[in-house]
Amino acid sequence: MTSTRRLHLGAFMRPVSLHTGSWRYPGAYPDANFNFAHLARFAQTLERGRFDAFFMADHLAVLNMPVNALKRSHTVTSFEPFTLLSALSAVTGRIGLVGTASTTFDEPYHVARRFASLDHISGGRAGWNLVTTANPDSALNFGLDEHVEHGERYRRAREFYDVVTGLWDSWSDDAFVRDVESGIFVDPEKVHVLDHKGEHFRVRGPLNIARPVQGWPVVVQAGSSEAGRQVAAETADAVFTAQPNLEAGKRFYADVKGRLDKLGRPREHLKILPGAFVVVGDSLEEAREKRALLDTFVHYDSGIASLSIALGHDVSGFDPDGLLPDIPESNASKSSRERVVNWARAEQLTIRQLAQRLGGYSGLEMVGTPAMIADQMEQWLVEEGSDGFNVMFPYLPAGVDEFVDKVVPELQRRGIFRREYEGSTFREHLGLARPENRFFAAAQGRR
Amino acid sequence: MTSTRRLHLGAFMRPVSLHTGSWRYPGAYPDANFNFAHLARFAQTLERGRFDAFFMADHLAVLNMPVNALKRSHTVTSFEPFTLLSALSAVTGRIGLVGTASTTFDEPYHVARRFASLDHISGGRAGWNLVTTANPDSALNFGLDEHVEHGERYRRAREFYDVVTGLWDSWSDDAFVRDVESGIFVDPEKVHVLDHKGEHFRVRGPLNIARPVQGWPVVVQAGSSEAGRQVAAETADAVFTAQPNLEAGKRFYADVKGRLDKLGRPREHLKILPGAFVVVGDSLEEAREKRALLDTFVHYDSGIASLSIALGHDVSGFDPDGLLPDIPESNASKSSRERVVNWARAEQLTIRQLAQRLGGYSGLEMVGTPAMIADQMEQWLVEEGSDGFNVMFPYLPAGVDEFVDKVVPELQRRGIFRREYEGSTFREHLGLARPENRFFAAAQGRR
Repeated sequence: MTSTRRLHLGAFMRPVSLHTGSWRYPGAYPDANFNFAHLARFAQTLERGRFDAFFMADHLAVLNMPVNALKRSHTVTSFEPFTLLSALSAVTGRIGLVGTASTTFDEPYHVARRFASLDHISGGRAGWNLVTTANPDSALNFGLDEHVEHGERYRRAREFYDVVTGLWDSWSDDAFVRDVESGIFVDPEKVHVLDHKGEHFRVRGPLNIARPVQGWPVVVQAGSSEAGRQVAAETADAVFTAQPNLEAGKRFYADVKGRLDKLGRPREHLKILPGAFVVVGDSLEEAREKRALLDTFVHYDSGIASLSIALGHDVSGFDPDGLLPDIPESNASKSSRERVVNWARAEQLTIRQLAQRLGGYSGLEMVGTPAMIADQMEQWLVEEGSDGFNVMFPYLPAGVDEFVDKVVPELQRRGIFRREYEGSTFREHLGLARPENRFFAAAQGRR
Repeated sequence: MTSTRRLHLGAFMRPVSLHTGSWRYPGAYPDANFNFAHLARFAQTLERGRFDAFFMADHLAVLNMPVNALKRSHTVTSFEPFTLLSALSAVTGRIGLVGTASTTFDEPYHVARRFASLDHISGGRAGWNLVTTANPDSALNFGLDEHVEHGERYRRAREFYDVVTGLWDSWSDDAFVRDVESGIFVDPEKVHVLDHKGEHFRVRGPLNIARPVQGWPVVVQAGSSEAGRQVAAETADAVFTAQPNLEAGKRFYADVKGRLDKLGRPREHLKILPGAFVVVGDSLEEAREKRALLDTFVHYDSGIASLSIALGHDVSGFDPDGLLPDIPESNASKSSRERVVNWARAEQLTIRQLAQRLGGYSGLEMVGTPAMIADQMEQWLVEEGSDGFNVMFPYLPAGVDEFVDKVVPELQRRGIFRREYEGSTFREHLGLARPENRFFAAAQGRR
């Protein structure tokens, strides 16, 4: 099968490396996750590499980890997404800027307004990673004793999305006439009062900012549960996902694209981007040596904490050399929990083995020469395992530099990645149309 | 009386001009309030003029004004403060960046985190204008039918402030050791879990970001009611205030500084900055002509709407040539309401006259040559009417350019304004000490 499709590449930049040993790697910046000058240079390098987007994951809490893990965490202090992405927008010109915002612990008016503002400031480069916030520690920072239940979070998310997109459509694209002569600044016929009254929200509107440059900022989702996939199929422009291998990726891809078919949405309207941890070497051996060296910087304490978080259950008291017992149901992310339990059962891994895998980085990885990495990426694209990747770097700055200087040219040579940005907005990078305003017919000639 | 004090100058930049005719002035940018490239240049010019801060007022709604006023409003679309200030931080180096955030319609964890993040990104230049949000239309965008009552808003604000400052102190200044050799990133003895449980908020903490560069970002308040003044005296580093003339300014200054005396706070720990609308001419006549020309661009419809907002009561149906009748009590800002009623009674102004005054700009103004403006500013400083001003510009860009190129050198020549920034943080510009961490003794040598 041949394909005229091309890869879309996001950069998973918060944390700058998911790998818990990354900050100790020779030549790495220990403070890479929390140093604006470094992050500005990384974003500029990614833009030179024609990446679609710079992506920030986020938490609304310091994860409640044991002190032995906390003290080794290189991501415990981080910038807040809107502030960092807005500052980065001023030192970059084309790359998309995707921030995470929670539908459980924020208000739709604030979220609609901040993404609209980032979209205007950046010239149409904003993306919203819509999350329902799986981390239960967040609830304790927002006045709740118990975390909001999974299904309820998704119902709220769906309504939240409706309110936000409705607010983005508050003004017609040609509402602001600014006619100095007559003194008419805005056409009052071209504002819509949303007056939303739903199960979770009552929001009058209109939004106090013009319609975003992109119409709507790009909407990204990352939930992999049944409810998460369905909300994504209904509403998302892109899905970030964790898939352990190509077979699993193809199943996920077919499932989500199939949901679009059922909804009557064209398949190309939603881009599926699995996370891929990429270690580049001039030879396979060199790449493997880098990966192995990196793992030596992981402490067991970090691993056991990561395992506890993934399971939604404190397993630090379990026998490290025993098998994983049955874990009670919890409110943690179902997909991450099932993934770990499946490994444990399928490979008969001990607690220690699971912890070591979880403690460094344990998902999809591509370790090898630029040609080998390009081979894998091309295979995923051609076999419909993905529409591209959310690239995770092993250490910074070298991980970004190596990818941009070695892997990107190889992808470009094969014709599966852009040599130049062809549009100016993030939506254009993804090949997605600008949404029409649900309340107003398309503007003629003016924006 | 002589003084060794020097002026502090903020720039009231959102809206870029309060004057409703400003966008129609010859040579003005009609979209100045909503054009990032323009705003970046204004901020850079203000920094060249050694201003202490760039200040953004804010609303959480499109004000519910009559359509005839709405269509003439040049501020109906605006950037959101955190996004704009963060972007501006990347194109400036010294000027303080003050954003407005509401204690009524936001969460302390979000607000603490965003200002901390802006403070780190900007190298210690963040300021929080703490408002309780007087505009009742905001409530309708956040699920409430009725606006929160004035006294309750201030009780919530006081607790909100305690939570935010407590969260800013989550980490000792020397908590992040980043010891690559041992693998210790953070000293777990140097984090404090706030565990706040109060009347309005339950917030566990810790904040997921390091202590701000300034310890605490500068806290600014603008409430002028009894409750507002008292909260300011207890908590603020600076007060923005609307004072119609020097006598009123001196009374306000004495009142607020007297409250500090009673609290045992040194007077110089809180800077009082009245708003001043400055029109610069090469002669008094030229300045007056500019001001008069500007007023010709104000439409009566804008005036009557402004008057209604100031009074918290729709007066558009009243006889334009009649006197202001008694207006029922409302939930609007008490200080602005009282100010208008006082004018109406003292000067026997008609509704039309009040509307015209309100519709353009009706507060403290300084219209004249650079020397005349400097005379007035010096008099306010020496006679303890203020510690400086929050300068409002009549139109952009010329209003900023004229102030920076003509008035600032005159103030510098008199020795009452800095020639260079002496510190790097906003707190240092204001001559304020860095707050100690309430949970940890001062760090030795490391920050």
